[in-house]
Amino acid sequence: MSRFDPIPEDRFTFGLWTVGNPGRDPFGDAVRPVLHPVHILRKLAECGAFGVNLHDNDLVPFGAPAAERDRIVREFKAALAETGMVVPMATTNLFTHPVFKDGAFTANDSKVRAYALRKTLDAIDLGAELGAKIYVFWGGREGSEADACRDPRDAIKRFRDALDFLCEYVRDRGYGMKFALEAKPNEPRGDIYLPTTGSILHFISTLSHPEMVGVNPEVAHETMAGLSMVHAVAQAMEANKLFHIDLNAQRIGRYDQDLRFGSEDLKQAFLLVRLLEGMGGRGRYEGPRHFDAHPYRTEDETGVWEFARGCMRTYKILKAKAKAFDADPEVIDLLAHQESWEIDPLLKGYSREKERKLRALPLDANDIARRGLGYERLDQIMMEHILGTRDAGSTS
Amino acid sequence: MSRFDPIPEDRFTFGLWTVGNPGRDPFGDAVRPVLHPVHILRKLAECGAFGVNLHDNDLVPFGAPAAERDRIVREFKAALAETGMVVPMATTNLFTHPVFKDGAFTANDSKVRAYALRKTLDAIDLGAELGAKIYVFWGGREGSEADACRDPRDAIKRFRDALDFLCEYVRDRGYGMKFALEAKPNEPRGDIYLPTTGSILHFISTLSHPEMVGVNPEVAHETMAGLSMVHAVAQAMEANKLFHIDLNAQRIGRYDQDLRFGSEDLKQAFLLVRLLEGMGGRGRYEGPRHFDAHPYRTEDETGVWEFARGCMRTYKILKAKAKAFDADPEVIDLLAHQESWEIDPLLKGYSREKERKLRALPLDANDIARRGLGYERLDQIMMEHILGTRDAGSTS
Amino acid sequence: MSRFDPIPEDRFTFGLWTVGNPGRDPFGDAVRPVLHPVHILRKLAECGAFGVNLHDNDLVPFGAPAAERDRIVREFKAALAETGMVVPMATTNLFTHPVFKDGAFTANDSKVRAYALRKTLDAIDLGAELGAKIYVFWGGREGSEADACRDPRDAIKRFRDALDFLCEYVRDRGYGMKFALEAKPNEPRGDIYLPTTGSILHFISTLSHPEMVGVNPEVAHETMAGLSMVHAVAQAMEANKLFHIDLNAQRIGRYDQDLRFGSEDLKQAFLLVRLLEGMGGRGRYEGPRHFDAHPYRTEDETGVWEFARGCMRTYKILKAKAKAFDADPEVIDLLAHQESWEIDPLLKGYSREKERKLRALPLDANDIARRGLGYERLDQIMMEHILGTRDAGSTS
Amino acid sequence: MSRFDPIPEDRFTFGLWTVGNPGRDPFGDAVRPVLHPVHILRKLAECGAFGVNLHDNDLVPFGAPAAERDRIVREFKAALAETGMVVPMATTNLFTHPVFKDGAFTANDSKVRAYALRKTLDAIDLGAELGAKIYVFWGGREGSEADACRDPRDAIKRFRDALDFLCEYVRDRGYGMKFALEAKPNEPRGDIYLPTTGSILHFISTLSHPEMVGVNPEVAHETMAGLSMVHAVAQAMEANKLFHIDLNAQRIGRYDQDLRFGSEDLKQAFLLVRLLEGMGGRGRYEGPRHFDAHPYRTEDETGVWEFARGCMRTYKILKAKAKAFDADPEVIDLLAHQESWEIDPLLKGYSREKERKLRALPLDANDIARRGLGYERLDQIMMEHILGTRDAGSTS
Repeated sequence: MSRFDPIPEDRFTFGLWTVGNPGRDPFGDAVRPVLHPVHILRKLAECGAFGVNLHDNDLVPFGAPAAERDRIVREFKAALAETGMVVPMATTNLFTHPVFKDGAFTANDSKVRAYALRKTLDAIDLGAELGAKIYVFWGGREGSEADACRDPRDAIKRFRDALDFLCEYVRDRGYGMKFALEAKPNEPRGDIYLPTTGSILHFISTLSHPEMVGVNPEVAHETMAGLSMVHAVAQAMEANKLFHIDLNAQRIGRYDQDLRFGSEDLKQAFLLVRLLEGMGGRGRYEGPRHFDAHPYRTEDETGVWEFARGCMRTYKILKAKAKAFDADPEVIDLLAHQESWEIDPLLKGYSREKERKLRALPLDANDIARRGLGYERLDQIMMEHILGTRDAGSTS
Repeated sequence: MSRFDPIPEDRFTFGLWTVGNPGRDPFGDAVRPVLHPVHILRKLAECGAFGVNLHDNDLVPFGAPAAERDRIVREFKAALAETGMVVPMATTNLFTHPVFKDGAFTANDSKVRAYALRKTLDAIDLGAELGAKIYVFWGGREGSEADACRDPRDAIKRFRDALDFLCEYVRDRGYGMKFALEAKPNEPRGDIYLPTTGSILHFISTLSHPEMVGVNPEVAHETMAGLSMVHAVAQAMEANKLFHIDLNAQRIGRYDQDLRFGSEDLKQAFLLVRLLEGMGGRGRYEGPRHFDAHPYRTEDETGVWEFARGCMRTYKILKAKAKAFDADPEVIDLLAHQESWEIDPLLKGYSREKERKLRALPLDANDIARRGLGYERLDQIMMEHILGTRDAGSTS
Repeated sequence: MSRFDPIPEDRFTFGLWTVGNPGRDPFGDAVRPVLHPVHILRKLAECGAFGVNLHDNDLVPFGAPAAERDRIVREFKAALAETGMVVPMATTNLFTHPVFKDGAFTANDSKVRAYALRKTLDAIDLGAELGAKIYVFWGGREGSEADACRDPRDAIKRFRDALDFLCEYVRDRGYGMKFALEAKPNEPRGDIYLPTTGSILHFISTLSHPEMVGVNPEVAHETMAGLSMVHAVAQAMEANKLFHIDLNAQRIGRYDQDLRFGSEDLKQAFLLVRLLEGMGGRGRYEGPRHFDAHPYRTEDETGVWEFARGCMRTYKILKAKAKAFDADPEVIDLLAHQESWEIDPLLKGYSREKERKLRALPLDANDIARRGLGYERLDQIMMEHILGTRDAGSTS
Repeated sequence: MSRFDPIPEDRFTFGLWTVGNPGRDPFGDAVRPVLHPVHILRKLAECGAFGVNLHDNDLVPFGAPAAERDRIVREFKAALAETGMVVPMATTNLFTHPVFKDGAFTANDSKVRAYALRKTLDAIDLGAELGAKIYVFWGGREGSEADACRDPRDAIKRFRDALDFLCEYVRDRGYGMKFALEAKPNEPRGDIYLPTTGSILHFISTLSHPEMVGVNPEVAHETMAGLSMVHAVAQAMEANKLFHIDLNAQRIGRYDQDLRFGSEDLKQAFLLVRLLEGMGGRGRYEGPRHFDAHPYRTEDETGVWEFARGCMRTYKILKAKAKAFDADPEVIDLLAHQESWEIDPLLKGYSREKERKLRALPLDANDIARRGLGYERLDQIMMEHILGTRDAGSTS
């Protein structure tokens, strides 16, 4: 066994809908048979995963009667026990059924909003029953193509009402869950409200129970808009709001690709893993490392598990590289001297005294500007850590 | 004079740097001579503008001695008095000089941060002297290409320290100014921190004086990333944080174009003007309508004033169309019935009683889904308002 | 009836798959029932359309026995006769069935390539039977996500072999058809081979019968990549290779939206219609004006026909505006003087004599550069034609 | 010395304008002093480069008198001899001076077109004198923001006239040069004509001497539009039209970044190097490996040479990895069996006999579709070659 092969201690999780994706796309039919949730559990356990996450309808079909629902849940819990897998996160499917064609919590039709809220209550109950401590909201249909249909300020208000309602519900039930909201700029709607992790972070600050709610950034969703996933996650971590994460890969300016983690943009993937793993002790993400990706449509079931293993292996490889990079003496040297014990205290916490001292500092702009910062060197060293040519053997 | 020709009551403003842009770009030299600020004032006044905005160095050259600075300011104030123009907004140039090559408030070098802070103190003093009530911060250099150079969380902390310091300074001086922060996703840096209006909104909520600070969204900056400017402005307005606005035009996924307002994406321009002007009384933006655009490089000075007039005319044309659209009986009919007096109260403010009633509502998903929403019709009507073919004469 | 309402003489066509689109998307199920092809014919005829276009499987289900196929075709031809509609274009569905998951003509598996070729032979026969004179090829699955799977040069060679084979087949059968190839940069594949109209134009020049083959540019496909549809169509027209066109609307850098024609980017739509309609007699596109768009997912069948009418109306509105723009005296004046009878002949067709005269011309770069070109004015006039404020009434 | 350190035999070249870039950008002034061309030559020779490329004005200032020009060229040739460096490629600066503000060969003003042609004649003479065998044309200003200013078909015709003229000139002079045309989608113009390598390839096929003219694709330019550089280069190579190449790095949908080669999108960089180096003998690019990139603006001169070394090292590292990947037995196995001796001949070269056999082949679509293709495995193996974890030591 390789040191990069996954083990449960790595806390890797997959959505049932990811490895279970049958490959239907806007231009083509399914290419793989639907996999039974219990089969997925067993196979992922074999691969070294820690747990699975699910939408209500990944497990219980839409509209299933209570007795069928209970039987399915019972069997699934038995399989969890058998495999040792857990369900750290659950969520609601508020996008597949045509009833959500104009949104769920933000739809113009009150009946749709009521239906969405009620479906979410049930799905939260299901999540609680399965032990989920994080509940994710992705408002995939909360948007528009014909923007005149709705004042976007009303959309925000409706979304807030729903979240406030559900926070109270969870508190009232004593579920001990936290919520994680997931942004996406577009697709399947022309524009989705609250399109970035940043806009979601602000929205959370306007809720009645902001302390219960954080974000679930997704690599593909920030990247679609050409935004830095690393900076988005950093903003969330700095605010103690990174409650969950969706790992995958994506090219900028394209349809939602949900590719195998690390299979595009290795540099961003490296920087992301480095940030999540604490950059040498500077604050680490402690939640599950969740993959929200799906196998290429060219694959049969064998390819599905190759895909799953690939996601996890690449994460572990990058984690090892991140550690080596942060311990590299040349890197440490290049990043040193970012602070000045004389100047720094003047820049924080205004007072007239500080202002006076600041104005009196001897600073020559041209002089300061002349210093080269060595970032080409720093970045090249980082790329060579990624490429594996920075270690001893490779410089010969 | 046409009813679309601008007058001071429209409150249109231009940056000195916009009409004064000499046309230098990454691949070419200046094509127009530099215009004197006083000349700009007079010409804009002739065009019907309300005021100008400025960076410190648009008026006072970098490093000018105090006496020269005072003379320049004196002459400029005389020209303001002469023309009746005002300076509603001022800002700091923290990007042109090489000292800011790695950022200003977020630079790794404390000396740079100190220099930037001090330059901003002076520029705020200048803004106050000219009567500016809004002070804008665009952190154009606050980003990176080689992301390993800095923990992005440190960048946020440094930016926060600077803003908190400056808020206190303004309060201490009694300037009565508000701050407006402007986001941009990239250019001139590979990735700029706090890249969207949404991320800035959240950042503001973490400041010591959030009540003093709002946003200054820019059409081009949101649009570069393919995000909806209308939704970004709506989120800011819903939070009472739209303190200023930068109007221009831009195509998605391109360098920062700063084109004449309304010259690209008329639909978004229409929707934006409609939102700013209150959509029939639903909350209007009251600040200046500021244009942050510049003329094509093909123009001489004649073209510069055509450009300025074009920005303002198109805004007024769209404003008239927005009013007509919101008053169109077919539109009113299509947008009616968004609320239900029976259901809506159940969706807001959780209680066990409401939960019980919600669960008891007779809702059939397939039934609800069947209803067509008429958004193709709504959008076509809107396009025909924009095209000017919706009025009586055009349907013949 | 308005002068913008469509009539058959306008030669507007729709794909059966466009108005017939039931609204399934990557995240949601169908929202509308499937419409019968004969029903579509009748309704489009009512709306004023000229004809319909189709994939083989839009009419005849995949794998239908010969007798069923013949019955379907017979009924459809009867409906064509009844409604007066025509089928100017046909194409093959080489993307829906899982057999095409790794491409059709470029797939690695010879059996897939053989299957695709054979299916196309049948589909061409069907098109011929229905009277189609243009046969379109959109290689939606001809691409990859895992680029190492295939040398992209082999993909081009295989695609060429298929096209050469099919050209000979059509010639041998005496069908008198022309082929029109359609480019798309990505989706449903990560990258599709020959991604732009330009790359397809070159590919055609390498075929055995280039005279039989032209392009079918699509607004959405060029626009996804942020390229100018107008420039792409102009290159095709300049080379006499615009054999067909797919009209719709799209925002840059997004999933394939296929929106109602003219519902996004009115400026590009205006410029495109102006180019197709000949810009005052400078070479007009004579083929059908085909819409490859689909209604929003929010619509029921009523919305479908609103959508169809909207596509056609907006085209006619823009056509009228283009004519008015090209006849506007100020526009004519701004565009005049582009030629010099003294200099122009020196720039075309090298000779030593011309070179000598060229080197002797008195040309002062700074002097030439000083002249302003009036493009801000020109563009503003164009925008006001689009907005409908350029006519007599609006300038008052 | 490491096996990845560059040597002249690697044939790496840099533009004078690349390492010589002083760091001016749209928002900031130069951060580095201008380097003398002779100094650049010496430093690049020290770094292991093979040669330099240049625009006329990189060496000879715009408008320099003949005597100064001759002195500069003499000194530069002496430095070439001294260092052993060569000048494989030259080009014309047709973008910096304001005279080119509306284009060079496609400008509306005949005087501008004449000036551009004449400047190019001089620059070709200079290139010839320095021994350049490739002459590059990048039409950076050949485009528009206000598209109504010019029929884009006229732009193509004017560009063709200029190229035809210049081909004849080079033939007449007996310079033995080839031309390489470089596409770019936008920046500094809103849209540039012939925006992609594909559109340029087609344009070449319409010239009077197509055999003299090929393409010079640039990573950044294809990537800006989100197109696959690898596919663009493959199309050019398949047509024997890859005459030169511009290597750098770029993120999609951004301003022209011209980053250090390999510093973004390692996967595409790997695939590109693999293609250029022949993928195990399948057709190799034989021209110089030219870098058209520039150092970050954070760097002083030390950083400039780090940048140059980084470009070359990363290329060599990827070349070694490409070789290892193509020799990996598991890769060979995964890519085998792409051909069928029974079926393949039927798919190439139509005859009625082949058609008959093709129609008779026993092919079951569902059966064929079932086979998984192993591309997740293939891609993961490739990523691990890039990451350096595929070799023996790493699997332990």
